[in-house]
Parts: sequence; C-alpha cells; structure tokens
Amino acid sequence: MFNRTMQSLGETRSAIRELYEYGRARKREIGEENVFDFSIGNPNVPAPACVEEAALRCFREISPETLHAYTSAAGLDEVRRAVAAHLSVRSGLECSERFVYMTCGASASLAIALSAILNAGEEVIVPAPYFPEYRIFTEQAGGKLVPVPVKRDFHLDPDAVARAVTEKTKAVLVNSPNNPTGAVYTQEEMRALGAALREKSASRGAPIWLLADEPYREICYGVPPVSPFTVYENTMILYSFSKSLSLAGERIGYIALSPQCANAEALFSAICGAGRSHGYVCAPALFQRVAASCLGRSADIERYRANRDLLYGALADMGYRCAVPEGAFYLFAEALEPDAEAFCRRAQARELLLVPSDSFGVKGYVRISYCVARETIERSLPAFRALIGEYRK
Amino acid sequence: MFNRTMQSLGETRSAIRELYEYGRARKREIGEENVFDFSIGNPNVPAPACVEEAALRCFREISPETLHAYTSAAGLDEVRRAVAAHLSVRSGLECSERFVYMTCGASASLAIALSAILNAGEEVIVPAPYFPEYRIFTEQAGGKLVPVPVKRDFHLDPDAVARAVTEKTKAVLVNSPNNPTGAVYTQEEMRALGAALREKSASRGAPIWLLADEPYREICYGVPPVSPFTVYENTMILYSFSKSLSLAGERIGYIALSPQCANAEALFSAICGAGRSHGYVCAPALFQRVAASCLGRSADIERYRANRDLLYGALADMGYRCAVPEGAFYLFAEALEPDAEAFCRRAQARELLLVPSDSFGVKGYVRISYCVARETIERSLPAFRALIGEYRK
Repeated sequence: MFNRTMQSLGETRSAIRELYEYGRARKREIGEENVFDFSIGNPNVPAPACVEEAALRCFREISPETLHAYTSAAGLDEVRRAVAAHLSVRSGLECSERFVYMTCGASASLAIALSAILNAGEEVIVPAPYFPEYRIFTEQAGGKLVPVPVKRDFHLDPDAVARAVTEKTKAVLVNSPNNPTGAVYTQEEMRALGAALREKSASRGAPIWLLADEPYREICYGVPPVSPFTVYENTMILYSFSKSLSLAGERIGYIALSPQCANAEALFSAICGAGRSHGYVCAPALFQRVAASCLGRSADIERYRANRDLLYGALADMGYRCAVPEGAFYLFAEALEPDAEAFCRRAQARELLLVPSDSFGVKGYVRISYCVARETIERSLPAFRALIGEYRK
Repeated sequence: MFNRTMQSLGETRSAIRELYEYGRARKREIGEENVFDFSIGNPNVPAPACVEEAALRCFREISPETLHAYTSAAGLDEVRRAVAAHLSVRSGLECSERFVYMTCGASASLAIALSAILNAGEEVIVPAPYFPEYRIFTEQAGGKLVPVPVKRDFHLDPDAVARAVTEKTKAVLVNSPNNPTGAVYTQEEMRALGAALREKSASRGAPIWLLADEPYREICYGVPPVSPFTVYENTMILYSFSKSLSLAGERIGYIALSPQCANAEALFSAICGAGRSHGYVCAPALFQRVAASCLGRSADIERYRANRDLLYGALADMGYRCAVPEGAFYLFAEALEPDAEAFCRRAQARELLLVPSDSFGVKGYVRISYCVARETIERSLPAFRALIGEYRK
C-alpha cells in the first residue's frame, strides 16, 4: 500500500540504530551502568567551549528575525566564505565560497552529492568495509554500490579500485579516517588513488569523481589526513561537524568542490537541485554560524586517544585480533567465530553491544565504538574477557 | 554528465527564491530601503521570547554531550510526547507519540511523507493554486501532481476534488491557511472533503490519504482552522514551526498521523524509511527541545494582521482586485495583464518584487508576501499606484 522500499527501509532500521535502540531500552531495564553500549558513533566528549560561546553570542548580538531567518539554499555568504578560507589553508589551493554548499550533516551531504551526480545504473566504488548508509544513498539515487576490499591492514588498495572501474563508474567514495576500521589513508595511498582516477578518467574521456567523506578529519592520532583536493582535481569534500565539534544532533555540515574540478558550475547546480528535491531548504541557521566560528577547532581528542589505548591494549592482551585504530573512534576486531552476528548475540548476552560487520560489507568482524565514558570501557573488560573465555573452552 | 533532473532543478531555482536572490543583490545596489521585496515568506516578526528563553535554558541545564547528541530518528521521546499531547488537545482525539516524527521543517515533512506513500505513477490531488515545491516533491517520489482549481473565492471545492479521484489517486494535499491565497478552509468544506474521501476510499477498497500541510495554522485572522484529524481518519498533519515561531532558518517541524488512520505502524515505518533514504538522521536537537517548549505559542500575529489591513485596503482602493486574506501572510492579487510574468517585470522596474502565479499552477495572479516591515508596505504604495496607472493610460 505504501512505498515498499521505504517501508522496508523503515522496518529494518540500520543494525547500528537497532542496537542503539535496544541499548536504550535495556538500560532502562537493568540500569545504565550495567549495559556496555559500543553501538553508535555518538561523541561522548563535550562540544568545545567555542560552540556555546558562539551560540550565546548569536542570541546576544543578532536580532531573532535575522538570526532564525531562512538563509540562501547554499548557506549564509559569510559562513561559506569562512569554510572556503579554511579549506584554502588546508589544501593550499584557492577555494571559492561559490562552491561551498552547507548541509544538514554528513548523511545529507552524501544523499545530496550522490543524487546530484548519479544517473540510473551508474556505479560508485567504495573500499569495503564501508559505512552501511552509503548503499542506501547510492541506491536511492538510482546508482549501484561496488565494494572493493581494502588491504589486510584496512588501508586503501588503489590498484584494486582502479581494476574495479568500468564504463559505468561515476565515482569513488572514500572515508578517511575510516568508519568502521579506524584506518587513516596515507598521502602515498591517496596520491596513488588520484593518479589512477586521473588515468582512468582520461582514457574514458569522462571524469570519475572522488567523493571524500571526512567527518572524522580532526579525529586522528598520528599524521593528519591529507587534503583530498591536493591529490585529485575532480574531488568533492563531504563534511560534517558532528564528530569534530560533538554536534551530531544539530545536523550541520557541508559539501565543497575542488577549485580545480571540471564543470564546477553545472555540478554545483546539480547539488542545489538535489538538495531542493530532497526537501532541504537550508542548513540550520544558528549552527551555520556556530560552525563557522569554530572551524578547525575540535572537542578534546585526547580523551578518545586514551579510550583507544585502554580498549585496544586490553583486548589485544586478552587475545582479540584487531588493528590499532589511527583515527575516528572505532575499533574493528575479528569476531571469534565466522558468523559475526552469532558472535554479537553472545556478546549481547553479556551486555556488550557490538555491531556485526555484515552491514559494513564484510564478514567476520565487529565494530566497537569507543566514544564512551572511560568507565564504560573499564567496567566492560571482564565481560570481554569472559566472552573470549567462552570460545576457548 | 551529472543528473539532468537535479541539474535543471538547481539551474531553474524556484521563482520565489530567484526573486529573493535578485532582491538581495538589488538592495546592495540601490539601498535596502529602495527595494520593495514581497517575494519570500520569511517571517519578519521576531520569534516569541519563549524561543530564546528555551534555548538558553537548554544551554544552562543540559550538558553539551547530551544536548547536542543524536536523537532517535523520529525525535526525542519527550518532544514527541509533547507534540502528541498538543495535537490531542487540538483534535479532541487521543494522539500517540508513537506516530509523531520530528522533521527538518515543512519541506522535509512533505518530501518524506510523499516518498513514504507514493509508488510510481500514483497521483496526488492538490487544490490550485498551490505551493510550487509540491510538484517537485511529488515528482521526486515518482508520483504525479493533479491540480484541481479552487472556487473563485479561493476556497476548497470538495466536489471538484472528488471528481478528480481516479484509481491512481493516493493522496489529497491541502494547505490551510493557504499559501499563496490566504484562504482558510471552513469546517464545512473540510468535513465535505473528509466525507468525499471516505466514500471514494470505501468504493475503491483502499484509503486515499489526506495530507494536511499546515505551517500557517496559527496565523489566522478569523475562525481558527479545524483540526484535519477531526474530519477524516486517514490523515497526516505536516507541520513546521517556521512561520508560527518565526524559525524558518532553523528547520524544525513534524509529521503526525491521525490515531484513527489505517495501518499506522506500516505507514510510520515507511516515513522512517523515507527519512533515512533522504539523509535525514534526526531533526536538529536543540530546536526539537525549543519547539516542544513553545507549542501553541506564536510570534505576534497582530503585526501581520495590521500589514494585511494596510496592504489590502490600499490596493483595493487603488483598484487592484484581490480577496481579503483570512490567514497566512500572502495576498493573491489579479495581475493587470493576462501574462503575470510580464506584469511582474513591469512591477520589478518599479522595484516591486512580486511572484507571478504561474509556478503556483494558475495564470494571471501575483503573490505578495506581506511579512515585511510596515514601512516597506507604506513606502511601496506610490509604486503600486504608479504601476496601476501605467495600465490605465
């Protein structure tokens, strides 16, 4: 009776959201402190002080009828200028506010960008494992997601990406620092990807677009990620302030085009059209201003690093197999049996909420979000130990 | 190269937005006070004090990591409960928070609701004139918009709607108080519509959905609009706080299902799925809380009434033909030549920015948004007088 696709999308909620809702209910049942909820990537480190300062300043200094008014569909001029200036410093290229489009967060950035570029049947290559909603947004736009495995250390395999290019390839979608693996692609890997895309684009006579989804850009424990604008010209940055500024619920982000990309005007029009057709009138006005005031700032990343060190160290000691996360706040560990979902059910019986890797497009792993209170990790360790003990009997 | 539909949607901006952007540029050129911008429905009356109070209270009383966290996709429990309680009082029915879905404003409500219910080729009947984005959202969801003229006084014609029902009709979309005409449909008209839909649904054996888009609900100068839940069971309310609370830029609204509607669980799933596929993760968290605190409140409507009286009185005196707006903040006047676009160009030469009715689905009218400073109306009157003078030569 209703739209079948939408109804089934709504009934099957993402595995992450499903577990998160289960966790909320379970906490009410047995007490918050007895559930070890590693399901969702909801920042637990508070927003930096600049967020509240900027918001209160807006309320103080701007009249309500101006502060809360519609902005242009692409965002406030001064906000777009600030984002362009920030990206110029980061990339060393002269970025223009004309190609910055403010969005309601990363999912909006993705849904809009993919709808803007894809025609029916066109393909989007994504290194696997990948964020599950990539498939939803690609298919909603009429496209086809083509997963290509990463290397064993979860790093990008530019040759494998190049081999997966077909006549229908429209884009490659990368996410570094990565959700769910925590990998941060090196400059060398990104340059090799850029070179491969340049070559493939030239031989086909039509550009392949690089979509760089980088909400975790600032959450990095080693060498910061390279600006994707510096490795390849036909690049779009899809950004969200959700993680860097701990503003996940406020829905604020942007799409920015490389100043060197082909047909930027037409592409920007398609982005505006896609935003319009999805019902996005403008990004939230107050948080546009707040985000512009806090560009380049971030919540206290050291707390995530401390969590990572504690969790990784403890799990590795117990015998879990996992790579050291280089960024973001996820640890991607091997499940202790081939069926990750079965493993997660056994973890859940010990109140450990882990996300099985199946919906990330690979089998046999779990994602553990460590953007939680340090005590949650500390208190969860006996359960992790008991869990691995079960498999050693 | 990009998606053609999206590119052309982006290139052709809505007539309203086009004029609004022209107005901004023109004001920079010749000074704010010399442009009479009646293009956009951007509330000029400040948000009521409860908005700032609620926002500041949130900053004071809720820790940032809770305040700005993701909410459930459908919204915060306490916010959904408050909306359901509000709708219960208004309708006299017991509304459930389980069927309230918080959105990023009216356009999001529309895009999501239409995607949730429509299958390819299904029809949505809309009284014409109608808000132009209805067509975009209907077509984006694979449906077909079927305009049905209103009566000469801009009021609903339930018989005409009933005659337009076909086997493919999935929904009727009404907007009262109306944009662009200012009509507020009477209880009698709405009841007749409900009866007609009930009969047609029964004879087909499948419900026709009533979508009541009511962002102007509180902006009404006479008898308040009837609750659509009381006239027909298979009803969805699409609401936005943009106009009532003067929060257009903050993107906050909701979809609510009648407690009496058929298959509410499945429909709500389809709404969740449509939200997900469009990239809506949750409605902005801070403004969810603010909106819940200010339910039933509104900006100072008397200022709009005074504007209406001033503008309507002056234009009618000069000889313009228009109906008295009963709600919203638009005056829909006959153009002084059959081609409304040509008329608007002549108005524009006098710095009067009026929206031609063509994109509203009727010919020969202009929409004049009077949510502007009173002085703008006062200062514009000589230009309106000169304009009608041109046609009398």
